[in-house]
Amino acid sequence: MDYYSTQISKLIEELGRLPGIGAKSAQRLAFHIINMPKEQVERLANTITEAKNNVRYCNICQTLTDKEVCPICSSEKRLKNLIMVVENTRDLAAYEKTGKYEGVYHVLHGAISPMLGIGPADIRLKELMHRLQGEVDEVIIATNSSLEGEATAMYISKLIKPAGIKVSRIASGVPVGGDLEYIDEVTLLRALDGRVQL
Amino acid sequence: MDYYSTQISKLIEELGRLPGIGAKSAQRLAFHIINMPKEQVERLANTITEAKNNVRYCNICQTLTDKEVCPICSSEKRLKNLIMVVENTRDLAAYEKTGKYEGVYHVLHGAISPMLGIGPADIRLKELMHRLQGEVDEVIIATNSSLEGEATAMYISKLIKPAGIKVSRIASGVPVGGDLEYIDEVTLLRALDGRVQL
Repeated sequence: MDYYSTQISKLIEELGRLPGIGAKSAQRLAFHIINMPKEQVERLANTITEAKNNVRYCNICQTLTDKEVCPICSSEKRLKNLIMVVENTRDLAAYEKTGKYEGVYHVLHGAISPMLGIGPADIRLKELMHRLQGEVDEVIIATNSSLEGEATAMYISKLIKPAGIKVSRIASGVPVGGDLEYIDEVTLLRALDGRVQL
Repeated sequence: MDYYSTQISKLIEELGRLPGIGAKSAQRLAFHIINMPKEQVERLANTITEAKNNVRYCNICQTLTDKEVCPICSSEKRLKNLIMVVENTRDLAAYEKTGKYEGVYHVLHGAISPMLGIGPADIRLKELMHRLQGEVDEVIIATNSSLEGEATAMYISKLIKPAGIKVSRIASGVPVGGDLEYIDEVTLLRALDGRVQL
């Protein structure tokens, strides 16, 4: 790409490494950045390095945060005896947006996947087991409804049950507003199996 | 978004300001960046600031480059008496990729658009006129085939013709491999008007 200057080519290359950004988008982004006001570019670059340097895992729930203990774990309003296990911080955020969940979380940072060589030791399960030595009434497993998510849910449930702690799994079924016609068969069967009496 | 740490929210916000990056992509990118190795993050941030700080306009053709005169303008192999006028550096790159064009370029950095309040003085036309005082045999106008691109082409052609320099416009028509069925009427009529005898 010697028709661009080295600096532009390097920027296009770096941006193109990010997920979901193809060659064309990387080009568009690079030229946009070059045309941005200088102080805006510096703010972008600083925010990137600062986020990387200051973001760490919460000592308790393992979510990404910039404090030793995240705002949720340190809030007095949250029920510490109710733990929802999620795969990552984005999933935590999804439940937080509902504004209705009053318990705390545990972020695994992944799911068990023999295919990808991710075993129980590669996700933050040890930290979860450690927390269960405290006062915990219920663990709600909210891993994704994918093969890996389900396998992780099964694994955790088998690990926790002997400790006498209640373990539950979020319901799986037809999404609200979903048109049956467009929903896959596995979900339809799941919804049928999970039917509740009215 | 207090369920994320301030640093993460700031990063999501900054990334979300870039063109073509929505709220969900900004979130995905932010978490990807936080999970990237530290040296890779630093390289990304540095590349961004360096590109912004070092990229300038070529003294001759006005393309974005990191030298006083870009590699194309300083190449001895390129015909300096043949100038292709393009709207931006990406369009220049598109023609460079063909590897067949032997002349030099002139980058306008925009097109005339009364709708957006962009007049002839807002694009690099003055610099083009200045170049025409040297030895130039032909100016090929390769602005886009949009309303603005066409208006700009007309304007430039009227400006140059009196100087006795040959002015041409790249052909407009059915793209190679294009199926007539799916091509808009304007393009079809354009292709008909521009037919060449065999």
